[in-house]
Amino acid sequence: MTQAGLRGDPQRITSLIEEIASISETPAPTGVTRLAYTGLEREAHGCFAGWMTDLGLSVRTDEVGNTIAERPGGTGGRAIGTGSHLDSVPRGGRFDGIAGVVAAAEVARLVVEQDLEHDRPIRFVVFAGEEGARFGQACIGSKAVGGMWTPEALGSVRDSDGVSIAEAMEALDFDPRQVERARWDRDDWAGFIELHVEQGEVLEAQGIAIGIVDLISGSTRFELTVDGRASHTGSTPMSLRADALCAAAELVLLCEEIANDPRHRGTRCTVGKLEVTPGSITTIPGEATLAVDVRDVDSGRQRDTANEVVSRSRDICLRRGVELSARLLSDASPVVLPAWMRDITSGVCKDLEVTYRVMYSGASHDSQMVGHAIPAGMIFVPSRAGLSHVPAEWSSSSDIALGVEVLTRSLLALDVQLTRLGR
Amino acid sequence: MTQAGLRGDPQRITSLIEEIASISETPAPTGVTRLAYTGLEREAHGCFAGWMTDLGLSVRTDEVGNTIAERPGGTGGRAIGTGSHLDSVPRGGRFDGIAGVVAAAEVARLVVEQDLEHDRPIRFVVFAGEEGARFGQACIGSKAVGGMWTPEALGSVRDSDGVSIAEAMEALDFDPRQVERARWDRDDWAGFIELHVEQGEVLEAQGIAIGIVDLISGSTRFELTVDGRASHTGSTPMSLRADALCAAAELVLLCEEIANDPRHRGTRCTVGKLEVTPGSITTIPGEATLAVDVRDVDSGRQRDTANEVVSRSRDICLRRGVELSARLLSDASPVVLPAWMRDITSGVCKDLEVTYRVMYSGASHDSQMVGHAIPAGMIFVPSRAGLSHVPAEWSSSSDIALGVEVLTRSLLALDVQLTRLGR
Repeated sequence: MTQAGLRGDPQRITSLIEEIASISETPAPTGVTRLAYTGLEREAHGCFAGWMTDLGLSVRTDEVGNTIAERPGGTGGRAIGTGSHLDSVPRGGRFDGIAGVVAAAEVARLVVEQDLEHDRPIRFVVFAGEEGARFGQACIGSKAVGGMWTPEALGSVRDSDGVSIAEAMEALDFDPRQVERARWDRDDWAGFIELHVEQGEVLEAQGIAIGIVDLISGSTRFELTVDGRASHTGSTPMSLRADALCAAAELVLLCEEIANDPRHRGTRCTVGKLEVTPGSITTIPGEATLAVDVRDVDSGRQRDTANEVVSRSRDICLRRGVELSARLLSDASPVVLPAWMRDITSGVCKDLEVTYRVMYSGASHDSQMVGHAIPAGMIFVPSRAGLSHVPAEWSSSSDIALGVEVLTRSLLALDVQLTRLGR
Repeated sequence: MTQAGLRGDPQRITSLIEEIASISETPAPTGVTRLAYTGLEREAHGCFAGWMTDLGLSVRTDEVGNTIAERPGGTGGRAIGTGSHLDSVPRGGRFDGIAGVVAAAEVARLVVEQDLEHDRPIRFVVFAGEEGARFGQACIGSKAVGGMWTPEALGSVRDSDGVSIAEAMEALDFDPRQVERARWDRDDWAGFIELHVEQGEVLEAQGIAIGIVDLISGSTRFELTVDGRASHTGSTPMSLRADALCAAAELVLLCEEIANDPRHRGTRCTVGKLEVTPGSITTIPGEATLAVDVRDVDSGRQRDTANEVVSRSRDICLRRGVELSARLLSDASPVVLPAWMRDITSGVCKDLEVTYRVMYSGASHDSQMVGHAIPAGMIFVPSRAGLSHVPAEWSSSSDIALGVEVLTRSLLALDVQLTRLGR
């Protein structure tokens, strides 16, 4: 076994990222659209499976569409692994999730091409449906891995066309009734490390190459519907209105105000969607629907913020004579990633003399769900200007290539440490 | 000539309104959708033309799709007429415009069946494209009659799919290049009286049967676009955001605040449309577009309000670090209808011992545009609860039937008065 050149190949990384980016609903300037549980997402998984097969690895797809390749280890035992996701938000970027899958593919290439030795199997994973944009529910495939779904729950969460996650899975020939079989357990898995782009601007601003994640934010998502009274914009005096959009506008500003309140330091609260009915220039809005996303690394502050938004929204709607209804879309707790996993990666960075810092993640990630089942770690590489979920999202291939080296060495060190500890 | 029974027939009125209501994109509970310059609008015009042909009247369609039937007069001369429109807003009601067209059809039936004598021709008109919902531009057909369009202007106003009014007209075999030929002039026309539902709650609340309109509100409509910066809702701290929807929410509340300011007493200012891009729960809105409708019977106050909205919106966007652009969609001045036309109808009401009041119209109407070319009058019948542009819009057929009598007698009195004055 030699570990001479474990740096990823920047040119190859660029080319793999381009290959996945071309699988999109929309042409390049308006960003990548490859939503959860669509044919396009499956096409991208198929592309990854092809890369793995070309390296001589075995590839399987689990009950909910996660794609898992494996390189056997020298002595067998519980597996370690890496990977991320290939779906995107509408009009998103080409790096979120993809960078981690391409990094996994590079790790696979390095271990195969250099015939590196490891005791236990290494698995290369693409999780299905990580982005919450379609179903309001993030990390669908990795929640299955974490044992957090029932078939009933998959049938109850629906997209804006009324299609449930279960129906979307069945349309792609997966079997949501078998979701519990997709769960990972500690008899089979020993640890998992995900590489991801930071999606913030800390690493770039501080000139640091690698982020090692200690905390992943939780998110509480809910939909608020305001029912007012539609009528003619010309013939209805201001004093007789129950304008659903005016009330909704107050709710948007309320979300911002609560998140900016010093009591909520660090909370992010966003209204990303607002739909107005009937949406005609000459009709006072009769109904408005808002989707609210609350994120925090502190679970108490996260739930308090969500409760405060709903409760103060009720006061606003009462004062305005409109009805409010609230519906929970999803609720995921913040997760602490284990210190001993972080120590492996920080040890690798020290050995390589690569700058790193420990930091929290504002975004949700598959590792958060994997962490419910087995020990998980996360490595961040820098994002340009902190932009993410937009076409301008960008990370350099040489930064990702360095991340590949840190990731490869971390996995190999994890393998050695587990063997030494007899695990 | 006998004028014994000039009351409209409530059963027939109900049946004609039902006949038109059935021509809709959407099923009944969600309201009528029959947009300007669509096949459905033409189908409704065809229905009216059929009614007129059945009465033995000649029917023609002008260059922009207005449908005009005529009963010749005893001595000829300049025509008088009545009518309204048959298009609707999205998910609108079954009376706005339709009541006036059905009233015109009833007048036609009464004069034909009772073989009533009149010196000059009486014309029964359906204007095309009155509702501004599709193109942001109201009264398209009647603006042509009023001589207020050029072919270039028809080519420059577009719907949300990018189709111009001219293109929509051509798709229906009309000839927008000939729009100026649709203009009415005083050599051919002597006067026009439109019946319409009030769309407010004054008549119902005061128990008055007939409104006689003195002023029609003007409207200034414009689109505001806020350009912020889209990014990830989890990884972007509140302090680094340029959230287009938060700015837009302030603009919505600004419109309401300005209209409610005592300086603007009587102004109505509404944001009926708000569109958020990309509209994903996990992406901070990068762009928001609002459509603002300002209405007033005072043209100074109307323009001052529009200017104040735009200027204070600029301040808000500057403070928030987002870009604002404003685009005028349409601007129509308030119109004063001639007192001598109103006097004819109030004389009829007095003779019939029907309660009436003079009142202004908050909504725009075809008569406003007709009034630019020839003398115009308007008769309102009561609306239930002031609701309009919604499925619940409703007026009783017996109220409309009484309106038909007032309208018929007003047209006959206008005919007599014009003859007496040698006009």
